[in-house]
Amino acid sequence: MHGLMMDRPLLISQIIDHAARYHGDAPIVSVETTGGITRTNYAQARARAVKLASALSKRGMGRSDRIATLAWNNHRHFELYYAISGNGQVCHTVNPRLFPEQLAYIMNHAEDRMLFFDRTFVPLVNGLREHLKTVEAFVLMEGHDDELAGEHDWLEFYDEFLATGDDDHRWPDDLDERDASSLCYTSGTTGNPKGVLYSHRSTLIHAMMSATPDVMNFSARDCLLPVVPMFHVNAWGSPYAATMVGAKLVFPGPNLDGVSLTRLFNDEQVTVSAGVPTIWAGLLAHLASSGEKLETLKRTIVGGSACPPAMIDKFRDDHGVEVLHAWGMTELSPLGTVNNLKNKHYAMSEAEQNAVRITAGRPPFGIELGVFDDDAKQLPNDGETQGDLYCRGHWVLQDYYSEGEPALREGWFPTGDVATIDPDGYMAIRDRSKDIIKSGGEWISTVDLENLAMAHPDVADAAVIAAAHDKWDERPLLIVVPKQGAQVAQDDLLGFYDGKVAKWWIPDAVQIVDEIPRNATGKVRKNVLRETYGDVLKQAG
Amino acid sequence: MHGLMMDRPLLISQIIDHAARYHGDAPIVSVETTGGITRTNYAQARARAVKLASALSKRGMGRSDRIATLAWNNHRHFELYYAISGNGQVCHTVNPRLFPEQLAYIMNHAEDRMLFFDRTFVPLVNGLREHLKTVEAFVLMEGHDDELAGEHDWLEFYDEFLATGDDDHRWPDDLDERDASSLCYTSGTTGNPKGVLYSHRSTLIHAMMSATPDVMNFSARDCLLPVVPMFHVNAWGSPYAATMVGAKLVFPGPNLDGVSLTRLFNDEQVTVSAGVPTIWAGLLAHLASSGEKLETLKRTIVGGSACPPAMIDKFRDDHGVEVLHAWGMTELSPLGTVNNLKNKHYAMSEAEQNAVRITAGRPPFGIELGVFDDDAKQLPNDGETQGDLYCRGHWVLQDYYSEGEPALREGWFPTGDVATIDPDGYMAIRDRSKDIIKSGGEWISTVDLENLAMAHPDVADAAVIAAAHDKWDERPLLIVVPKQGAQVAQDDLLGFYDGKVAKWWIPDAVQIVDEIPRNATGKVRKNVLRETYGDVLKQAG
Repeated sequence: MHGLMMDRPLLISQIIDHAARYHGDAPIVSVETTGGITRTNYAQARARAVKLASALSKRGMGRSDRIATLAWNNHRHFELYYAISGNGQVCHTVNPRLFPEQLAYIMNHAEDRMLFFDRTFVPLVNGLREHLKTVEAFVLMEGHDDELAGEHDWLEFYDEFLATGDDDHRWPDDLDERDASSLCYTSGTTGNPKGVLYSHRSTLIHAMMSATPDVMNFSARDCLLPVVPMFHVNAWGSPYAATMVGAKLVFPGPNLDGVSLTRLFNDEQVTVSAGVPTIWAGLLAHLASSGEKLETLKRTIVGGSACPPAMIDKFRDDHGVEVLHAWGMTELSPLGTVNNLKNKHYAMSEAEQNAVRITAGRPPFGIELGVFDDDAKQLPNDGETQGDLYCRGHWVLQDYYSEGEPALREGWFPTGDVATIDPDGYMAIRDRSKDIIKSGGEWISTVDLENLAMAHPDVADAAVIAAAHDKWDERPLLIVVPKQGAQVAQDDLLGFYDGKVAKWWIPDAVQIVDEIPRNATGKVRKNVLRETYGDVLKQAG
Repeated sequence: MHGLMMDRPLLISQIIDHAARYHGDAPIVSVETTGGITRTNYAQARARAVKLASALSKRGMGRSDRIATLAWNNHRHFELYYAISGNGQVCHTVNPRLFPEQLAYIMNHAEDRMLFFDRTFVPLVNGLREHLKTVEAFVLMEGHDDELAGEHDWLEFYDEFLATGDDDHRWPDDLDERDASSLCYTSGTTGNPKGVLYSHRSTLIHAMMSATPDVMNFSARDCLLPVVPMFHVNAWGSPYAATMVGAKLVFPGPNLDGVSLTRLFNDEQVTVSAGVPTIWAGLLAHLASSGEKLETLKRTIVGGSACPPAMIDKFRDDHGVEVLHAWGMTELSPLGTVNNLKNKHYAMSEAEQNAVRITAGRPPFGIELGVFDDDAKQLPNDGETQGDLYCRGHWVLQDYYSEGEPALREGWFPTGDVATIDPDGYMAIRDRSKDIIKSGGEWISTVDLENLAMAHPDVADAAVIAAAHDKWDERPLLIVVPKQGAQVAQDDLLGFYDGKVAKWWIPDAVQIVDEIPRNATGKVRKNVLRETYGDVLKQAG
């Protein structure tokens, strides 16, 4: 017997409808790619999204057709999120930091029919055009520009395209909550990127849980500035979760330097932000040198890669900003874990609390984590047993888009990380499965060795890889970029590990390099390092 | 094209599974009906709920069979919530404050197969037994008691029943999220109670939104003591929302007096509570006379009936407790609106903020409100136009359980209230539709007149009804219970309205009574008052 409650699908359009109805005048502040600030609000954004949806329908975009964006965080990108998904098409956010070959691969693989992009990317798109087999229309996200139009006859302009829509368009009334809503490709360190196809349902359940206090803690009293790009797992879903509660939104556009961000944070009285450690390092450096303060910011969600404890301390001690340390993946929409204390921790010592704070956090309701051995047998959550980290839940990938191979193992998604989980659910990433060093049958975490090396005063960047070894199969090799002007000696660097890790964890040798290769989202391309340096210990031994 | 995310139903069992897995040692503290405190936790509660589910299956309880509870807020009631719904049966919470005839009507109408009840209700159940046509088993929520067993051979004991279950029972794997999960009857002021049949899906979406900062704001750092009964719209859903985030739980049992509550709040370091104004009035009076403080309580959700502004002030000024004023209905699971300020309000004056704070609040994502005229035409949300309040959304009733008449009008649920909604979504209840006074074609709110009368120093209780009038059709009649020992004069009472309402709103006369009749949930039975006093102005006029 079914319950007798209203049975309505969970749809992305309901989020912007709710915001327009009850938070219509809540501001949306947007830094344009060409400079200057545009001020709009939820009522206007909804009206424009509806009109844009109409223009998409008139252009012949059908149910589940993919429409791509190459764009910064700005109000037009926000409108596209709601117009495309709301109208039953799929919003495919493309990461402009990928190599042109990858961009072409992704857009051809997705069979995108339209491409919306910011002015920054005109040269990029002009070069890509002939390689894009399915894109029928190229729309620059601005008003009409005579000069650009003269130079590029293939260009359309957003505001003109928008004007072709009808104001009284209605969202389709036959959308299923399981219909595809948006698409984001992973930027793997090896192989071709793979598509993750979100549904309206997964997006809404993720957004509801994201707004809760133990996750992003969004309310109508907040002003959110998402620094994490909207092409990066939908800015971690924050444009959905923050809109759902009617928070003020500030979109920073292309300039994410310390000066620009500090001004925007303070001018717009931002209360909460979200971004990767690299951006925050730049901001904190600017604040330290300028003596400026973050006047209204209370919290920032930090993810994408592990947040150094020193950064958490600096935010708290110098600026009164609480860091919410989070872990996720494109395949997880991206929310996996967030680091928050529990009621019982407040009775514990500062040291005991800090031991919890350095983990990746614990999963909110809706997601389940487990560690598994090579035979997919689940291992205990005892905080000590390392295993392959698997996930399952309401917003976890089932299959990659148009890929032949199954993504799951025994109904779980294998993340490719090696981790421990403690009895309270706090998870600690030990390494990427493919990076971890198997030395004489024991595991050595490259993450731990890299973090320690980064703490050395003369080291600007560091990576540790498994180098082949005749006796131990694999041994750690430390690869280091010295700080400008610094001289680093192998003995000094390796001596730095003394007393900090087990003796047999200490790398066998050091390679000094000018730069460590990273991919479009800042992850170290260890496969490239292994190709170059993977045999140096073998030759030496 | 569907998205490619895991497609798993939203089920109530997932809430207790998540809590047991990641918050297994979070305490559940329960005051027993017989006195004394039982301490358990989520891991133990889940284990007992699973075993109880097994016992239900062994007893032959089938999919969607109704199982009733007549119980206080305690840990066994909590276990029943999860065991019954998790196992695919329907948890029917019955309000013991109803008249015996109503109780029999409800349980026969629901066709309940089992009844679980607390010791308080042994005499009640003994008297009802012969009238309950479908109940096969009567289970007292305690361990075995020789004396009671000797007196009542029809009694079973919870702990013995539990022991018949298997520890390794598994939740059914074929539950649909739209399956019925629980049942609660409205306690109307007229007519027979009607059943509201919740689904797993509606309960989970309601719980997720309830946990968000603008609603109940529950986190793992909280300790919740729900004063609102678990037989009253599932304690406003708080045993789901708080369990979902792993909060510590404190169940107060039968004694909700100021002394008992104050001790429990402070001993267990409660941070958040929820209940009706009547209970809080008793608590605040006790605190004032004893000089005790609420040492850890930070917030309390107040609903069920309008919260007097003086109560909000007292909580804040004397105890540092924030009152979250909420409005809801059984048909709304019950969440309709919560009063929270928005970002923009912080730039406004205290007076402007207070004008917002006295409303019933605004709807969270997932629910939509509208005011309508008699022809079901929607009226503007301008904060001034009064109309019949309708609702729709993910946790709003579609149909009453086994009632012939459709509950909806044009796809909306008519609440029976008359309200205004302002452009920000803040709703203010003006009256019940059937109580509002239509005087010479204009509407007069009985709620406003009652609130003013209650502020008179000599008035203990007050109600205003529409009395028939030859010239104006209806005119207000004030019915008053004086404070003990106080003498009240009609002229003094009516003069109290001078300058506070429009002249033509002032009641025509006053009736002094000993008591104002109320129903089981404390609502004034105005139909009874109208039967007695509805013609006094006519006779007089």
